[in-house]
Amino acid sequence: MMTADTHNSDGAPRGGAPGPFILSTADGALTERVLDSFDGAPSTRYREVMRSLVAHLHSFISDVSLTQAEWERAVSFVTRLGQVSDDKRQETILLSDVLGLSMLVIGINNPVAAPATESTVFGPFFVDHSPAYGNGEDISGGAQGQPCFYSGTVRDVDGAPVSDALLEIWHSDEDGNYDVQYLDRQVVQGRGHLRTNAQGRFWFTSVLPEPYPIPQDGPVGDLLSAARRSPMRPAHVHFMIQAPGFATLVTHVFRDGDRYLGDDAVFGEKASLIRSFVHHDPGTAPNGTSLDRDFYSMHYDFVLQRTSDGAG
Amino acid sequence: MMTADTHNSDGAPRGGAPGPFILSTADGALTERVLDSFDGAPSTRYREVMRSLVAHLHSFISDVSLTQAEWERAVSFVTRLGQVSDDKRQETILLSDVLGLSMLVIGINNPVAAPATESTVFGPFFVDHSPAYGNGEDISGGAQGQPCFYSGTVRDVDGAPVSDALLEIWHSDEDGNYDVQYLDRQVVQGRGHLRTNAQGRFWFTSVLPEPYPIPQDGPVGDLLSAARRSPMRPAHVHFMIQAPGFATLVTHVFRDGDRYLGDDAVFGEKASLIRSFVHHDPGTAPNGTSLDRDFYSMHYDFVLQRTSDGAG
Repeated sequence: MMTADTHNSDGAPRGGAPGPFILSTADGALTERVLDSFDGAPSTRYREVMRSLVAHLHSFISDVSLTQAEWERAVSFVTRLGQVSDDKRQETILLSDVLGLSMLVIGINNPVAAPATESTVFGPFFVDHSPAYGNGEDISGGAQGQPCFYSGTVRDVDGAPVSDALLEIWHSDEDGNYDVQYLDRQVVQGRGHLRTNAQGRFWFTSVLPEPYPIPQDGPVGDLLSAARRSPMRPAHVHFMIQAPGFATLVTHVFRDGDRYLGDDAVFGEKASLIRSFVHHDPGTAPNGTSLDRDFYSMHYDFVLQRTSDGAG
Repeated sequence: MMTADTHNSDGAPRGGAPGPFILSTADGALTERVLDSFDGAPSTRYREVMRSLVAHLHSFISDVSLTQAEWERAVSFVTRLGQVSDDKRQETILLSDVLGLSMLVIGINNPVAAPATESTVFGPFFVDHSPAYGNGEDISGGAQGQPCFYSGTVRDVDGAPVSDALLEIWHSDEDGNYDVQYLDRQVVQGRGHLRTNAQGRFWFTSVLPEPYPIPQDGPVGDLLSAARRSPMRPAHVHFMIQAPGFATLVTHVFRDGDRYLGDDAVFGEKASLIRSFVHHDPGTAPNGTSLDRDFYSMHYDFVLQRTSDGAG
């Protein structure tokens, strides 16, 4: 199994060992003084992290010869992150997402080796205490959209089924909105949790997810706009899967054919996480009922890694 | 005269030319995708700055193998910057100061060649529309502290006096406080502006500045505390000097012998900016009056650079 240690196999400095942190800067003596100012930190890890951060920020400013006006805009930008954040919105995480920092941290801390399922961003729309469902139930909660029948399995890397695994599921409706985005009504839609059966299987009904833009009315929206970057995320369903003895898996299943695939605003897309949401004409659905409208089906087989260290 | 171009004479990538921004990261393909996402920016400068920032942030995270918990603390820290900032307090600038970023930007954008006076941080305590004074007047406004007689000249790099130069002056009182820090009273103390005479001379009376801590009750205070860093700034007087045809000079004069010299929390100290604040026993002061208490005097000769490009 890959570990965080082997993950850095390119020879980059490893946590714990002092790296070549003194990058070239416009004022090397100043940079040295700032680096040295962390020498008294009781935590060697804090010293290591801050020294690397300082070295890289000084190098960035030196590399681009940051102007005073650009520095002022940067100060204003960073200050606005906290000012538009509250208990319902986290603009700093959104910035981390659109700069690919979130995905980088997830990759470093959740290294997987095939056939284990890959992780992706958690996103801002998870809610604790989702409704409990049994297999076969409809978790849409009345969300608008085309019916979709979901199924799959949860297995370990050797192919053995993982029974009683807890799946948290959340996704957008046909307008690309999550229930919590409807501020004018208190609804729980397209979200719930259920457990795999003795054969490691799960199945449920809901609606087809659609693509949506990340919030654009804050500083992160300004950043995307200045870069002419799309705010869109390709359609997907979130899964968080937990089982004793296994590392928690936080991931999505993306809808194959979505026009925004290849251009995810938060870089969460991975090829292994794309699946067909198969279109069906009206007729008999996977649950045996007869439907007089088009519907879809999607199947994904998740593979969990065991926690060798007891974490997860 | 040194320019921003020669300032980067160590061969680091120059603004305008694409630099070797793709540093080693834990997921090179991800980093590439994020770098490429800025390719559509209409501003080549924006593209350059963001690519460098992304490359350095990804390298930082990879170099230290940032953990999920550390990422969460970083998100919380950055969010708090804006949340504790308001129209009287700017925590993001304070962070920039304690990481030496402010001084680095100032150095890059205000390169000086001897004998021109060096710049240092602007700080958070400047106030627009300070009181106007004539030479020889007392600008203390009743601030508590030991009397100090200030004098000096403003000249160009060839030694010619600069007449009618505008000097903005602000400093702390004997408790290390600026007037604006006394939230319970509306006072204007230890702050004012005046102009050099035909011989380029200036002189005024006020009180002796004392060292003081930067604000410690926000996230930056937590950062200093975790590093066991002192929050103190050595005693100094702020000067901002403006004259047509010359680059604006933003600087301090530091008080020689101060116990915090060599350990300025914001790295603003420069050897060329340290001067004796000379102690005098009771007697005749520089302005001819007789004083029955100890007093001090300080003299500084400022040298301004001409603006070759009309800026400043």
